[in-house]
Order: sequence, then structure tokens, then C-alpha cells
Amino acid sequence: MAEFLKVVNYQDALQMIKDKFPLPQRERVSLEESLNRILAEELISPEDMPSFNRSTVDGYALHAEDSFGSSESLPAFLDYIGEVQMGREADIKVARGQCCWIPTGGMLPAGTDAALMVEYTEKLGDDTVLVFRPAGPWENVMQKGEDIRQGQGLFSPGKRLRAQDIGFLASLGISELSVYKPYSIGIISTGDEIVPVERKPLIGEVRDVNSYSLAAAVQSCGSISRIYPLVKDDFSVLQGAVKSGLEENDVLLMSGGSSVGTMDVTMDVLLSFPGAEMLFHGIAVKPGKPTLAVKIGDKLVIGLPGHPVSALMMFNIVCAPALRFSPSMAVEARINVNVASQAGRDDFVPIKLFKEDDEQMARPLLGKSGLMSILSMADGYIHIPYEAQGVKKDERVKVIQF
Amino acid sequence: MAEFLKVVNYQDALQMIKDKFPLPQRERVSLEESLNRILAEELISPEDMPSFNRSTVDGYALHAEDSFGSSESLPAFLDYIGEVQMGREADIKVARGQCCWIPTGGMLPAGTDAALMVEYTEKLGDDTVLVFRPAGPWENVMQKGEDIRQGQGLFSPGKRLRAQDIGFLASLGISELSVYKPYSIGIISTGDEIVPVERKPLIGEVRDVNSYSLAAAVQSCGSISRIYPLVKDDFSVLQGAVKSGLEENDVLLMSGGSSVGTMDVTMDVLLSFPGAEMLFHGIAVKPGKPTLAVKIGDKLVIGLPGHPVSALMMFNIVCAPALRFSPSMAVEARINVNVASQAGRDDFVPIKLFKEDDEQMARPLLGKSGLMSILSMADGYIHIPYEAQGVKKDERVKVIQF
Repeated sequence: MAEFLKVVNYQDALQMIKDKFPLPQRERVSLEESLNRILAEELISPEDMPSFNRSTVDGYALHAEDSFGSSESLPAFLDYIGEVQMGREADIKVARGQCCWIPTGGMLPAGTDAALMVEYTEKLGDDTVLVFRPAGPWENVMQKGEDIRQGQGLFSPGKRLRAQDIGFLASLGISELSVYKPYSIGIISTGDEIVPVERKPLIGEVRDVNSYSLAAAVQSCGSISRIYPLVKDDFSVLQGAVKSGLEENDVLLMSGGSSVGTMDVTMDVLLSFPGAEMLFHGIAVKPGKPTLAVKIGDKLVIGLPGHPVSALMMFNIVCAPALRFSPSMAVEARINVNVASQAGRDDFVPIKLFKEDDEQMARPLLGKSGLMSILSMADGYIHIPYEAQGVKKDERVKVIQF
Repeated sequence: MAEFLKVVNYQDALQMIKDKFPLPQRERVSLEESLNRILAEELISPEDMPSFNRSTVDGYALHAEDSFGSSESLPAFLDYIGEVQMGREADIKVARGQCCWIPTGGMLPAGTDAALMVEYTEKLGDDTVLVFRPAGPWENVMQKGEDIRQGQGLFSPGKRLRAQDIGFLASLGISELSVYKPYSIGIISTGDEIVPVERKPLIGEVRDVNSYSLAAAVQSCGSISRIYPLVKDDFSVLQGAVKSGLEENDVLLMSGGSSVGTMDVTMDVLLSFPGAEMLFHGIAVKPGKPTLAVKIGDKLVIGLPGHPVSALMMFNIVCAPALRFSPSMAVEARINVNVASQAGRDDFVPIKLFKEDDEQMARPLLGKSGLMSILSMADGYIHIPYEAQGVKKDERVKVIQF
């Protein structure tokens, strides 16, 4: 029986994986393809926004001062001298005491500094407009450069682009940008007892859950997953699979080969590659101590436990933080029971969120590590750190969602 | 100047859109393609899970009672009679006083009811195992059907599938399922002043923001967006564009044709289609009163305001709830200023979240409705309902995220 050679704590494991993770590549995409992509460049505004003074209402462009003091009973009288056309330069000249019709989005003529909504006016014949309310300076006007000035920083690398960000960039004429290329992640399930999902397992066999759950988890992180055929615990077959997996991906996830029984084969295979460097061979966490990482060239192999719950939890806590470009969502909640934990180990406990008297509550889902239904019931998990002895009933906890 | 013909309140508008929304189609997909898809069928477990009693540790299968009372100083002595092979039926017979080696995931032999970790044992020669700790009944064993029983309901229609759900279904051998087909949503931007994003707008023109932000917002809801070329405010051109948009999509979004200036053309075009039914022609909300909906055959046309912020906000509050199969995420926060609102109108105010003394706080982002940067700064929005006069500083609000 092999001992765990190099057991590290959770923070060290996470740091090593982040440090040794391949650097992301970049690619140019059009704005239409950029939803949820992660920006890989500093974006600077190419222009003032808006580029001219615009009316935000249908009404009259005027000199605000000319309307001061006006009211329903004492309207101001302005000379009507024409209209600004939508989509045209406002070449009309509006002197003091004059006004002109302006549509929403229309350009304010030089000199005017406000637009008054048509509802507060009345046209009197062809030449006169009655104004029943004073307009403040720049009322109903978006001034040139008010939103954004040319050269102003917009977004930094690492920003995930949402619909409103894309609209914002469109408004500035940015139609193409540099984003990080998704990582390509290979997934190899190993183990003599594992059979394909479509097959009814014989006694003593179990279905390949990890290929599916890990592939989906990889996709959830915005990466591309590539599932490889199942591999038995055989040195040369496993070596061939690892070779292909390394050539075709940035990172290789293996599951099942890290429990005591088959760990030696996996480790021997990984260390048979030239320049392989073992980062660790066990993490002091629950669930999922038998987790290993080996750096091979500029690629990284992470060996996850065979048990589906442990494998997916370990993916979430050690792989996802390196894959994702933005932190996971978390909610605060009050925990409804004591949860014991062992000092000298980081514990990760699946959580079901629920409401009690309108308060956000957290219930730990405790179960044997093979029960996939537990994770399927969970909304997220809590992290009980190395030095803590557990959490007490009614303590506030941070539930990291998945 | 046309009056708004039929102004409805927000709840009524939302209900009408939901009622008249096309029913989603279904499609079969493989489990590998099902991440984030919405289940369209009731899923029932086809079998017991696990299908046999499994060990969760490497160690010895035994009769728990035989280990009772054992300790470091007073070990129990059991006869070693062989081993269970991984992936094989456990055809070994273990009588009282006997034990056999069992690997993690191995099948418990008939009669045994516990597995003891190897760490708490010592092999003595070929025939004897010393047991230094009592094993409880079913300790380190996952019993047949413990996770899920055959025929048990798993998930209902409407469930969004996450990585852990996919793993769970894989464990039960479900490799294909029925999900809702994404809606196809056409997007037509109209307005004489709108120019393509790539073009530098002349004075009096603005770029087409809405095609981009609405397409991305549609994608965020899991639907497929199709952007049509820009259309000027011209009856016959617009009619042709709407005809194509209706033929090729489930729902058509139009923006820009609903402000007072161009609303009549849009409305005339929509009502020119046989069987067109106007649902409403204005919603008592801020921002975005000029929002309309017309049912044409089994398709739906929603006209959004031309202003980018209003268009995207209105999409989020009236379209997204009908498109999404699950509600939007929301967080609770304390608002840091008073926000006034007018009774008789629903207000939607963009919000920036921030932390103060570790408390989740909300700052309203108030700005003129054309400023797209406001929405790009926002984390979500709050809804001040029809009857409310606003929210007071320090009140707790629900921030709907986008």
C-alpha cells in the first residue's frame, strides 16, 4: 500500500495550481460574439459620447433663460423659427427669444441649452410658441462627452462582458475586441469497475459519472471539454491516453486513478513523461484528499478522486478558481445546525439554501461521498478553513454557488 | 401627435406578454449537450442506486458484530478467507468470524454488513486479520437503493440542468433527455437617425446600440438572436422587414419605432398584418413607457423604446421573464439614499452593489435615459411597484441581477 507522498493544505494546493496553470491565449471576436467572454485588453474610448448635444424629448429647443418665470397662468412667448430634422445637422440659428421644434435624439442648435417637452407648450399660429414652465439649463439635453470622454478607460482585462457592456461598446463604435480563448480541458475516467453510461452495470461495476459531470463543470467555467474513452488501470493503455490528452488540451483532468488502489499506476504513468514535476499527491481536505497535480511541460494534469461527489467538489474547489476569470457567486446565509470539522484540514460541505421567516438559511447536506443525489440537491457549498473547528448553529456563512 | 392608445400597468403588460408568448418546442439532446438546458419532461429513476452494497473504503468486509468491543489493546481476530475483486461479483461467502479484503467501490459479499478501513487493521500471516476498532453496522457501505429507488421522481419540467444534475443522471444511466428548444428572436432596429456600429455617426446620427445589446440580452436568456438590417421609418420597407422577421422567428423585437415621432408608422405596419391584435401601446413604467405589443398569428411583436437604456431595461422587465425558464437571480441589500417614485407607475432603477462594513449595500444609478454607461456600471435593478411612493434610505431592497 503506497503512502501519500506529499500532502499539502488547501491554500497551498490552490496556489500551486494557479501558478502552474497554462497562460490563457487571446483571440479577436466581433462584438456580436462577445457575450460572457472575458476581455483580454484594456479598452479606451475612441471618442466623446455623445458626440453632440442631443435632446432627450420631443419638444422645443430654446435658451433656458427665456423660459424663466413662466407658468400656466403666465406663459412665456417665443418666436418659432423652424425645426431640427432627425439625423441632420442643426444648421438653424436660434437667437434669444426664439425656439425651434426638436425631436427626441435631435441635435440642439448652437446657442440653445435646453429642450422643453411639448406637453408644457402650445403652438399659437405659425410663429409663436407659448411656454408654460421654466426649463433649467441643459434640461432634457445630453451634452457632448457627458457620458464618456475620448481616451477614457472603459474596461480592463478580466472583465466579463454582459449585454449592457456590449451595448455600451456598440455606442462607442467598438465592433471587435480581444478576449481570452477558452481553455481546452481533456477528461479521462479510469478504473476497472467503470462502465459507459449507456451500459447496465454488472454486479461490481458502476457507471462513468465523472466524464459527464466534469465535462459539464468545465463548460460552466467557460472552457471547452473533451471526453476521452474510459481507461482500465493498465500502465501502457493509460500512458497512451495521457499522451493524447496532453497533446490535444491545455489541461488534463483524470478521475478515479487517485484512490489508494490505483493511484500508483496513475502516478507512475504521469511521472514517466519527460520533465514531469509532481506538485502534490494529496490535499488535506474533505472530501477529496486523494487529489494530485503533475506539471508536464507547459501542460498540467490534475488527478481527481474516483467518487463522483468528491471528484466534482474537488473540481469546484481546486480547478474552477483557476479556470474561471471571475470569482464564483456567493450568498450569505444563517446555518441551521452545528457542523463539526477537524482542525488541520479544510472542509467543504454541500449546502441547500432555504427561507425561514424571509431569512436566507443554509442547511448542510451531509452524506456518504458516493451519493450524487446529494450534490444534485445542493445550491452551493461552504468552506470551513484549516484552522477552524467547525461552524456553530446560527452562524452566518458564505455559500459559494454552483 | 398621436396619443398613447392603450396604456396598461406593468403587471398587466407582463401577464399579457406571458399569456400570448409562443409555447416552447421540445427537442431530444444527449446528456453531454444538456448543460444549462431546461428539462421538458418528468424524469423517473429507471433503477435502484446503487444497485448493490458498495464499500466506500479500502479495507475488510466483515460482520460488524464481530468487531464489537475491539480496541488497540484488545484487537478482534478474524479469519482471512480471500478478497473481492474490483468490478466482479462478490461470490465469496463470509461466515461469522471471517473477513475478506475489499477495495473502494467493491461489492460487499452476502452476509457482511460493514467495511473497516485498512488503517484500523493488521494482517497477521496469511490467514488472520487483527481489528483494532469496532465497525458500526453498514459503516463505510453504500446500501443498494440508498441513494435513489427505482420509479422515484428525479426532476420536473422547468429544471435547469447543472453539472451536478448531469452527473446524477449519468449515474442512473440516463443518457438522453427532452429539453425545451431555445426561442428564436428576431431584432429590428428602426429610426432615421440610426447608423451601423462600424460607421462614424454624422452630426444628428447615433449608432445602432440596440441590435447588439438586445441580441446579447436574448442570448443571456438562453434564446437564439437574429439581428436584421437597420430599417428607416418607411412604411413599405418596414413592412417587408417585419414580414421576414415574423416568418423566421418566434418573437420579433423592434426598437426605436415606438417613440412618439415614429410610433405611428410602426403601429400602422404591425396592424397591416391580417389578424394583428394590439395588446397594449404604452406601459406605465419608468423608464420605457413607449413599449408596445402586438400579437400576429401565433407570433408576438414587442416594440421597445429607441433609447438604449430604456430598450434594455424594458427587455429585462417585460421580455426576459417570459423568455427565461427560471427566475432571475436577486440579492438583498440596504439602499444608501432615498429614491422618489411616482405612484401610479412602476419604477425600475439601475443599482450598483457595494460593501460597507461588510454589509451588502445598494446605490441607485440615476441618469438620463440615453446614457448606456449607467447600465454598464449597474449590477442589477430594483422594482418600485405601482402603489409605492419610493424607497427610503436604509430600507432593504431586492436587487434583481443582470
